[in-house]
Amino acid sequence: MFDQTPQGAEVIARTKAPGRPRIVIVGAGFGGLAAAKALGGAEADVTVVDRRNYHLFQPLLYQVATAGLSPAQIATPIRAVVADATNVRVLMGRVSGVDAARRVVRLEDRELPYDYLVLATGARHSYFGRDEWERFAPGLKKIDDATEIRRRILTAFERAETEDDPDKRRRLLNFVVIGGGPTGVEMAGAIAELARRALARDFRTIDPRQARIVLLEAGPRVLAAFPEKLSAWTARALGRLGVEVRQGKPVTACDEEGVVVDGERIPAATIIWAAGVAASPAAKWLSSEADRAGRVKVLPDLSVPGHPEIFAIGDTALACDGSGQAYPGLAPVAKQQGEYVARLLRARLAGKAPAEPFRYRDRGTMATIGRGAAIAKFSRRFQLTGFVAWLLWGLVHVFFLVGFRNRFTVLADWMWSYVTFQSGATPTTGKNSE
Amino acid sequence: MFDQTPQGAEVIARTKAPGRPRIVIVGAGFGGLAAAKALGGAEADVTVVDRRNYHLFQPLLYQVATAGLSPAQIATPIRAVVADATNVRVLMGRVSGVDAARRVVRLEDRELPYDYLVLATGARHSYFGRDEWERFAPGLKKIDDATEIRRRILTAFERAETEDDPDKRRRLLNFVVIGGGPTGVEMAGAIAELARRALARDFRTIDPRQARIVLLEAGPRVLAAFPEKLSAWTARALGRLGVEVRQGKPVTACDEEGVVVDGERIPAATIIWAAGVAASPAAKWLSSEADRAGRVKVLPDLSVPGHPEIFAIGDTALACDGSGQAYPGLAPVAKQQGEYVARLLRARLAGKAPAEPFRYRDRGTMATIGRGAAIAKFSRRFQLTGFVAWLLWGLVHVFFLVGFRNRFTVLADWMWSYVTFQSGATPTTGKNSE
Repeated sequence: MFDQTPQGAEVIARTKAPGRPRIVIVGAGFGGLAAAKALGGAEADVTVVDRRNYHLFQPLLYQVATAGLSPAQIATPIRAVVADATNVRVLMGRVSGVDAARRVVRLEDRELPYDYLVLATGARHSYFGRDEWERFAPGLKKIDDATEIRRRILTAFERAETEDDPDKRRRLLNFVVIGGGPTGVEMAGAIAELARRALARDFRTIDPRQARIVLLEAGPRVLAAFPEKLSAWTARALGRLGVEVRQGKPVTACDEEGVVVDGERIPAATIIWAAGVAASPAAKWLSSEADRAGRVKVLPDLSVPGHPEIFAIGDTALACDGSGQAYPGLAPVAKQQGEYVARLLRARLAGKAPAEPFRYRDRGTMATIGRGAAIAKFSRRFQLTGFVAWLLWGLVHVFFLVGFRNRFTVLADWMWSYVTFQSGATPTTGKNSE
Repeated sequence: MFDQTPQGAEVIARTKAPGRPRIVIVGAGFGGLAAAKALGGAEADVTVVDRRNYHLFQPLLYQVATAGLSPAQIATPIRAVVADATNVRVLMGRVSGVDAARRVVRLEDRELPYDYLVLATGARHSYFGRDEWERFAPGLKKIDDATEIRRRILTAFERAETEDDPDKRRRLLNFVVIGGGPTGVEMAGAIAELARRALARDFRTIDPRQARIVLLEAGPRVLAAFPEKLSAWTARALGRLGVEVRQGKPVTACDEEGVVVDGERIPAATIIWAAGVAASPAAKWLSSEADRAGRVKVLPDLSVPGHPEIFAIGDTALACDGSGQAYPGLAPVAKQQGEYVARLLRARLAGKAPAEPFRYRDRGTMATIGRGAAIAKFSRRFQLTGFVAWLLWGLVHVFFLVGFRNRFTVLADWMWSYVTFQSGATPTTGKNSE
């Protein structure tokens, strides 16, 4: 796709100020961007490499997939974020590997030398070896995933409207979400609200309120990372929204026609995968030790064993707390790890003593189910459900959105939707807009 | 893509209330949508057919292509627009032809019978027989065109940033717009402002302000539909924005490397086609008389000769005023024609006398060049240029945007951009977000 000549690497090497160490950050997700920002003004030349030229606020991606928000509202140009940090440069490009011996990052068309390397490459979906399911059940990681899922959801209603065969219409109005984690819960709730509120009045032949939304969780309960009480509350809240929650049974088949769970076939034209994630191939690049999900096992200071100059953070890393418990794949964990590595590198550059091991400060986790319904856990004793949790969820997410403009427009859209019951961005685009 | 059984047509026939005439409108652009809205509550079953489920506000599409607005801001779900008109139904589907003898519209998967047919299928680009140019110089008609052009523009800057070969970098920073009509002028101006303002601070190696934007017009002057004075003012205003305007010479070649005009080759990685449009194949469907651009020649009441029950409006039609002068392909013309046909049909249904021939009421035409610069023509005597014309252009376009929500968010985005010099939606998506 790019067509630079290989002397690229040399040029960058030459442009390096003499003696200034080079820090390369791969990936501009929560972890990588936090590291880059915290390294602004440091005595080093920092290069951020990402396949995209924007940072994606993934926690709200499901709202793009359900026509609540537009892609631009949850994406911020990386360059704009680090515009003031003149020692930080941004390269749009795809990393194909790392040569740890020669200390270079391999891009498609050049090499990027580093003195310190931060791998924040994130995670992708995992279909647990059933990759053939991806065609029928797309996952939700990228903006293109979200617009494709939105297209499928809205097209299903459009096709149902013109469908005369009742069985086919039934199938078009069935929506199956696989995976009862936060993303699956949020998707199922959002589809239910789209069908029961935003689209309710728009059709003549079908009644979108008759759409059947099924949330499938193979484990014993949804939101397994939360206390049982909150899982139970979530399942009830989903039920009130009209979502059919099935727990404790894995999906055994997934194809054109629908899914099979617990021996029963559920016909569905729209299937969404929210079940599994696997780390990006960073561990393979380093041929270092990884867990089954492909996460790089890192030392307490987040460096890769045998490579004190290489760090892995966020979903790329398997980091454990004092008690050997692995940290969860959450945005705040990635952020704090990025900031930690930046602090550690600043200390090293200043020749200071090695830093304390990384410790995650858990300020609480939340998940939203739908209009006026969310859960929040701050400690074993302090937990919230319902409207207050939902307000809090909204405030926190708007607050952490990158870029004031996004905060403003997202808040405006949410208020609008809350008052009018309409959704933000209903038109289908992508393949469909032709 | 759809999979309905052919009994579809029968079903629709059956669902038709006895004796109620069936009006089919093909296309939900300005003309078709105006007709559908004006037929709300009429004594007829109205069906709107469109390939998309949304109406696109094309006059602002160039702002999506230049990262000023998001697609959802200029697209309104058709169903929402006609939600209150219970006698109007919307079908998402692709029309493949018309059988005027049997009075049915052919969709991919079914037939749609009609008593009255309104063809509002709009126009596509025309490369004047050089269709091989489309690959290198995409046009701007659909949302996908706009996001693809945005991707190309922003990717060009990204690639230039990492490009070490000065010639290749030069080519990446050259932007050529072919065609000096309103779209071409608006695109050229918007790219210039994107480079000189929104992106100015974001890059380290390149200076986006060094981008070269060339607007090529084969005819003697840009905005040929406007008085010469305004064309000259526009060319000067573009010059002030840093756009190189070349008039009077056609493009003789267009390829991977760039374009050739007047014997000179201009290397450019990004080429945009704003030169020619051709009507959709409606004339072929009816095998009726058409002009070179493929527009159906219609009678003074906009009906197709020999088919008093078929009407063609907007860019689909070649309609002439009393003096035999063809009406231009403008949104207001299409709108007024849609409203006229609706009135005419209501009169016919009520058995009233045939309507007056269609007359276009020209309330003025405008074009915008950039921040604080636009032109407006209301009559031979009353014309405007500059800041006032620009404010007026903004007000008029916001006012005519379909949907209060879009009006609100677009206005908010414009004000934001005006104050901050930032553009609304810079991230590149589409193929690039992978």
